[in-house]
Amino acid sequence: MSVLIVGSIALDTVKTPVEEHTDQLGGSASYAAVGASFFSPVNLVGVVGDDFPRSEFDFWKSRHIDSSGVQQVAGKTFRWSGEYAWDLNTRETKSIALNVFENFKPELPDHFRDTEFVLLANIAPSLQLHVLSQMRRPRFVIADTMDLWIETTRRDLDALLPRLDLLILNDSEARQMTGDTSLIRAGRVIRRMGPRYVAVKKGEHGALLFGPDDFFSCGAYPLEDIHDPTGAGDTFAGGLAGYLAGQGGGEIDFALLRRAVIYGSVLASFNVEAFSLDRLRRLADEEIHDRYQMFRVMSQFEVLP
Amino acid sequence: MSVLIVGSIALDTVKTPVEEHTDQLGGSASYAAVGASFFSPVNLVGVVGDDFPRSEFDFWKSRHIDSSGVQQVAGKTFRWSGEYAWDLNTRETKSIALNVFENFKPELPDHFRDTEFVLLANIAPSLQLHVLSQMRRPRFVIADTMDLWIETTRRDLDALLPRLDLLILNDSEARQMTGDTSLIRAGRVIRRMGPRYVAVKKGEHGALLFGPDDFFSCGAYPLEDIHDPTGAGDTFAGGLAGYLAGQGGGEIDFALLRRAVIYGSVLASFNVEAFSLDRLRRLADEEIHDRYQMFRVMSQFEVLP
Repeated sequence: MSVLIVGSIALDTVKTPVEEHTDQLGGSASYAAVGASFFSPVNLVGVVGDDFPRSEFDFWKSRHIDSSGVQQVAGKTFRWSGEYAWDLNTRETKSIALNVFENFKPELPDHFRDTEFVLLANIAPSLQLHVLSQMRRPRFVIADTMDLWIETTRRDLDALLPRLDLLILNDSEARQMTGDTSLIRAGRVIRRMGPRYVAVKKGEHGALLFGPDDFFSCGAYPLEDIHDPTGAGDTFAGGLAGYLAGQGGGEIDFALLRRAVIYGSVLASFNVEAFSLDRLRRLADEEIHDRYQMFRVMSQFEVLP
Repeated sequence: MSVLIVGSIALDTVKTPVEEHTDQLGGSASYAAVGASFFSPVNLVGVVGDDFPRSEFDFWKSRHIDSSGVQQVAGKTFRWSGEYAWDLNTRETKSIALNVFENFKPELPDHFRDTEFVLLANIAPSLQLHVLSQMRRPRFVIADTMDLWIETTRRDLDALLPRLDLLILNDSEARQMTGDTSLIRAGRVIRRMGPRYVAVKKGEHGALLFGPDDFFSCGAYPLEDIHDPTGAGDTFAGGLAGYLAGQGGGEIDFALLRRAVIYGSVLASFNVEAFSLDRLRRLADEEIHDRYQMFRVMSQFEVLP
């Protein structure tokens, strides 16, 4: 089955202590769509300017990403520029130019409106709600969010939460949203705000998944060298959503969600190995399979291969 | 089989935003010994003053902890006092009075010197080395350490490392010891300094275990309410060491060490549920077993119960 993904599409300029790359493909929807595309067809919704490289449309096509929901309008594509500190753990946004993204109003092509799996990648909650309102009968709705929306558009976010099957956010956002320092309490409190499941991303420490009766904890893949952390969370969300959609019409239970969290983590671990989406562009299914098995080996302590 | 445990024995005064307890049993060896005692007999080595409660000797006896290596000398027992911030994640040492601990020189009773499993709980590396020099043929030697020794007695610590089978330290100490922000690189670098295995404790994020060819990652038990984090790391080390000793004479391979890390985590998770060792004093084997199974359920994603 397909997954509909809406979010930002950007041209990023990213600087680390080692390298700098200019005007590379970025944005929450870009990372999420390519991450998901390893498991299922993707219906992509977003906006780009007339300066957006034609070659990226070709790239999407090659990955079975239907870009007929991507509006190309007069003006410049959304630009983001950031710089990472020496340890790659903290980053500073150097500049943001919303450009055509400023007036983005996602409109879904008719053949997108029946998509059963939906990933509302990180954009304003009002836009996420607007997309949901156009879906005919979504079966599983996932949303990602960020500190900015928790701080500035909390009412929209609160309206979105009860409509979600799964909310994805990172550890500091979970603490910010609840005012609770315990991630365990925070995860459970956020569930009571509406979403059936909550996934908390913890970067190098992995991820937590909270369900009605279950809890799942996984570590991060042990990477020695990270080149560019940009988009890790978006790729995680995309991989997770794509895996669920790719499993088809069966029941979405906690066991399936556990595996989806691992596949999301696998995709994210590849993504940070190179700038922009460069690692995902040359990623093979076989590599994903191998790293998934590595996750199994590194986290199990009773039943070993 | 028994495990020999040496470290500090203290009377702690601990304050949290909610509670304050005065002159309660504490110290690295106290937590470690009681943690280990759930799995194997313990030979305890330490020093206390003449003000140390007789009842604690009875408590040790009831837990099959042989305290004939605990010197009781004239003077006051080591006192430590600390206060936790509102989130229980940071603490400030309010006062330290070494008292009889200042001139502590561990001397092992003869019948302790053949113990095969050794846990050098957190004390000065020179004392840890002094204990090792008295052991006849230790089979598996574990040491815990802390930032103070990494900073002030690095030469002693470096001399200890090649004599260890397993070094246990926390995440900030691993970074401090290597100057590397990546815990994955740090763990591997520390292994090259001598210990065959390295365990990195990450508090609420669980633990990592590095071996010659293997890597293991586990989360922390999802606790909503922590009452006193004091001694969590010592209890982890004790539970781990006790579990290994309790498995007897078989091969100590990575699969066994994985389970030992989980049992250490289980014991630590109980310990923080109450002040001092209060939770361990009333802990039942059945509870340990149940929480071990919960660890399995919360971390596995392929073979589920």
